Order: sequence, then structure tokens, then C-alpha cells
Amino acid sequence: MQCPLPLADYPRVTLAHGGGGRLGRRLVSELFAPAFGNALIDSRHDGAVLDALAAPLAFTTDGHVVRPLFFPGGDIGKLAVLGTVNDLAMCGARPRHLSLSFVIEEGLAMETLWRIACSIGVAARENDLRIAAGDTKVVEQGRGDGLYIGTAGIGEVMAAATIGPRAVQAGDAILVSGDLGRHGIAVLTRREGFALDVEVDSDCAPLWGPVAALLEAGIEVHCLRDLTRGGLAAALVEIAEDGGVELEIDETAIPVSPPVRAACEVLGLDPLLVANEGRFVAFVPRHDAARACAVLRAHPLAAGATVVGQVSARAPRGRAWLRGLFGQARALAMPSGEQLPRIC
Amino acid sequence: MQCPLPLADYPRVTLAHGGGGRLGRRLVSELFAPAFGNALIDSRHDGAVLDALAAPLAFTTDGHVVRPLFFPGGDIGKLAVLGTVNDLAMCGARPRHLSLSFVIEEGLAMETLWRIACSIGVAARENDLRIAAGDTKVVEQGRGDGLYIGTAGIGEVMAAATIGPRAVQAGDAILVSGDLGRHGIAVLTRREGFALDVEVDSDCAPLWGPVAALLEAGIEVHCLRDLTRGGLAAALVEIAEDGGVELEIDETAIPVSPPVRAACEVLGLDPLLVANEGRFVAFVPRHDAARACAVLRAHPLAAGATVVGQVSARAPRGRAWLRGLFGQARALAMPSGEQLPRIC
Repeated sequence: MQCPLPLADYPRVTLAHGGGGRLGRRLVSELFAPAFGNALIDSRHDGAVLDALAAPLAFTTDGHVVRPLFFPGGDIGKLAVLGTVNDLAMCGARPRHLSLSFVIEEGLAMETLWRIACSIGVAARENDLRIAAGDTKVVEQGRGDGLYIGTAGIGEVMAAATIGPRAVQAGDAILVSGDLGRHGIAVLTRREGFALDVEVDSDCAPLWGPVAALLEAGIEVHCLRDLTRGGLAAALVEIAEDGGVELEIDETAIPVSPPVRAACEVLGLDPLLVANEGRFVAFVPRHDAARACAVLRAHPLAAGATVVGQVSARAPRGRAWLRGLFGQARALAMPSGEQLPRIC
Repeated sequence: MQCPLPLADYPRVTLAHGGGGRLGRRLVSELFAPAFGNALIDSRHDGAVLDALAAPLAFTTDGHVVRPLFFPGGDIGKLAVLGTVNDLAMCGARPRHLSLSFVIEEGLAMETLWRIACSIGVAARENDLRIAAGDTKVVEQGRGDGLYIGTAGIGEVMAAATIGPRAVQAGDAILVSGDLGRHGIAVLTRREGFALDVEVDSDCAPLWGPVAALLEAGIEVHCLRDLTRGGLAAALVEIAEDGGVELEIDETAIPVSPPVRAACEVLGLDPLLVANEGRFVAFVPRHDAARACAVLRAHPLAAGATVVGQVSARAPRGRAWLRGLFGQARALAMPSGEQLPRIC
């Protein structure tokens, strides 16, 4: 589809596009609305009144500042939509409504904005997510970096019981939904211009499908967490601390693809700390572990699912342990510095 | 209240505070959560599961990039919360839940972030708005401007009929809730260092109270719009076009305070185009106009409410007309350039 806004007349976003006047209005009607293919945005009011939703609702938010805007396997628009889908999915909620708040740096190529808006439209449609509300601000050159996108999502909670760190129980099995580290490596190599022997694509993918499959199969899901900034290590340490449990992970069971492992070795990165955008960790009762694994593997976006560890005990000051090839255990640490800024 | 995060140890926000690791976690638990005084944020999950809400729901979003971060009468935090309250109020919805997405520029003084977070907490509590979800990203110095805040809001629609441009009818009276232009002048004078004879404070205020009063009084409210970027002129042109009606405003009836009028004259600004953050326009049936005016004036945040015009006819390509002191009429134009960048 071609952009209805004449790109030759408006090759770049100007401050006036954020001024609440005619240009901003055209940006909505001739760029965003056609790209999103969306009726609610067209109602042109301060907000959207939503169709009836089955309670209870989950509500999430996320800011997206990834650099560069386009990377192997995705772009900031796809990332913003799927990041919201995934945060909702981790609450056991079917994604329903999305809001988008753009902070554009003056001078961004209008063609770039159009491509990103189209990517948002595609991702929203593919995931049955309604773009219900939007806002655009423009900041001066040197006060942004092309484009930042803030999102919020509303979903319908389909899980019968509460999903979260406090529902984790001793004896739970810990699964990851696939191999780790692709997103971080994809963004980093594109940003820094590293050439890898095998190009790594981001794993950027919507996780509601695999989660819905678990719930529909009647698996008692205790906790879910998507493995974004901070990777698997940060997620496990957080869940151990917030859930008050001791976890043990088998280092040899953690799936990392050969190109990601090679890139991590060259760059001095620990794949457990590298960001993902289409992977999650699930805590389920031990007796459900094999079935949960089979259900996930039957879904194309979790074909690499595997059990990586278990919850060993309740503990008020919970920790996550990593057991290595020779049986030695070390406590997993949350990253304390900044490994990879602006990865999502 | 003092910030539980030791500001002497962490005087400035660093990239690592956005890295998904230990520092970001401390930022949430020792700065945001205490400032917000909030349990949901403490549940530390990817999103919040909300209490049952009475359908139908309104959903809004807004980005806040005001410069400077503090201005007479408010700051970016108060503005972000009240902007969301107001967008929901304009849908006839009682504000219930808020999400916050921070994009912080590396180097922001932690003390500044604490003050803004406290301001957010106060504004949310005063307006019975639950902070349900949050996210923090940090970008490199020179890629932001201190702090941008993206918000989304969920409210319960209390209006019986749809409120919006398409519900406007020929014969409707047009009211504004108070004098215009304070916010724009307050921000501009602080930013540019202009000294006015009388300092102008922003009108930044929550509008759900006055709107609720209208609804409770049984006024048939057809359309509401808060007068932010683009001011009264942009709001009226939009409503005329989207509602397909001709509007007529009496220029002499538009309330502008003497200091704002004086500042506008010195700066060459049209008060009809200047941003407000605590004023709205309401369209009600003519027979309800006097009563609506009385109901609004009885509320402290709409004490200056007054009728400024009426809807003269239906018209497929609607326009808004301004009738001046000597009876001459001119078509109101939406701002086409950028009058005051980064005003909200």
C-alpha cells in the first residue's frame, strides 16, 4: 500500500506535525489511520469507548526505544505491538486493545514513519489487537532518536488462577519456550555493524498463542515471564525473590543456538543475560511438566520448548542457582550494570 | 517524605537504571513505589489484573514532552496524570486506572525524578486514580530531554449517551469552562525567561469533577473536548469538521484574563490558539445551556464557565465562525504551523 499522505510534499516530520493543528490531523488521517486500517482511531475523540470485555482485565504498559529502528527480524513498530501482546500473555490474558503514544524526533523521514506504522498495523491485525487510542508528539532534533513508542494494552484474563511469582510452588518445573539470546544479538550486530558467519534474526514473536495452548490444555500455570531486558537470569532472580523460592537451573539444558553462542563468545556476553522478544519462562507443577512441554512444542512459536530446572524449596530470601556441567552450583546474579542499552 | 533510594549514592539516572537489572529494580521499589504509594506496582509482574470495572470502558493515551519539566502551577508529572484524567473525562468516563511509561535521559538528577514521581503520586491519589502499570527506559545523553512520560488511562463511562463530535446537534449551545490560555503562557514565560507584570499560573486541573456534575445534573451532554494543544480554535474546527456542523462563536464572550491577554499581545499570540490544561468546551442542548452554566459555575474548577456560542446548522463540510465586536464573522482556522512546541 502507498502512503496517502504525499511523501514528496512532506518528506520529513516537522515540529508542526506535533502542534495540535492541521498537519497533525493529516498525519492521523492520511498516515496512521490507513496504516492501522482502523475505525476507532477514526472516531477522532480524546479516547475510545471499548466494546464490552469479559472481566477480569489485565492492563500493561511498555516503552520502546530500540536502536536501530529496523533490525533483522523486526522493527520498533512490530516490537511495540508484540511486546504488549507478550506482557498481556504473561498475565494469562488474551490481548484485546492497544494504545500507542509516539514521541518523534523532528526530521524523521516520513517514509520511515509510514513503514513503521504499516508494521504496527500488520502486527495488530495478525494478533487480533484493536488499536484503540493514539497520540503523537514531536520533539526538536537532538532531543530524541528518531522514534520512541509508548504502548499500553488491555486484555481479558483467561487463566482461572492468578499467574505470578507468588503462585510459584516448591516442586514446580521450569520451562523455557525456545532458544535464548536471538533478539539481543540481532539488534547488537545490526547496530554495531558486526558481521557474523550466520546472521541471527530477532526472535520477536507473539506469545499469546503458546500461552493460550497451555491454558486450553488445562495446565495449571503458576508463573509466566517473557525474557526481555536482562534475559533469563534477571527473570529467574526476580521470580525467586518475589516468590520467595529457591530455583535450580541446569546450565546444560538451556537452549542457545550455535550462531548466538558463537556471537556471545566473541562479544563477551552471557546468553543468560541477553534480551529476547519471543521467549518466555513458565512455572508449572512437576506432574504437568512433560505435558506442558509437549503442548508448547506443538505450537510453531514454542517448538524449542524444554524443561530447564525446578523450584527446590520455599525460602523467604529466594535465590536462583545455576548448576553447571560438573555439578557445581553458582547463584545467578541480576545484571547490575548496563550490558546492552536500548535493546527494546 | 524523603526518597528511600539514597540520592547521595545515586545522584543521577544512568543507562543501567533502564537495563532490566538490579538498579532498575531498586528504582521501582525505592523511588517509584514509595512515591506512588501503590500496591499494584508492587506486585512486580508484567501487568496488573484489575478489579472488576463497570462496563463500558473508555481507553485513552497521551505523551507528555513539556519543556521545562517544572512550570508555574505544575510539572510534567502532574500534567501527565491530569491530562489522562481529562481525556477520560471528555469521554464522560470516571478515571480509574493509569499506566506510566518513562523515557528518561541519562544524567537526569535523581532528586528531580523523585519530585516528579511524588507529584504523580499526589495527583493520582487526589483523583482516585490507581497507578496500575509502569515501565522505565533510559536513553543516552543527547537522545532525550530529561524526561518524557507516556500515559494510558482506563475509565468507566458514566454518560448514558455517546459523547463526541457526531452527537453535536444544530441548536446546541457551546460553553467553555473558564478563561483561556493560562497553561501556554505559564510554560512559555518560564521557558523563555520572560518577566510578566503578573505571573500567570498554568490552569492545569482535573476536569472529571465538573463533567461529573453535568452528568449528575442530568444535562444532555453532546460533546466535550479539553482545550490542549491548538487551544479553543483547533478544538472547534475539529468538532465542526468531524460533527458536520456550522458553529458560531461570539468573540466578545470568550473569557481571557487580563495578564494572559497582555502576554499574548506582547508575544504576538492568539489566545484562541494557546494551550490550556484545565479547560474544556461543552456542547449541550440550548434549553439546558443556562442550567449547565450554573452547574459548572458551582464547581471550583469551572467557576468561570460561560456560553460562548452555538451550533447554527448541520453542514457536511462544517466550519467554525468567529463573530467579532462589530458583527463581522471570520472562519476560524486550525493552526497550520507550530506556535508553541512542547507545551504539553
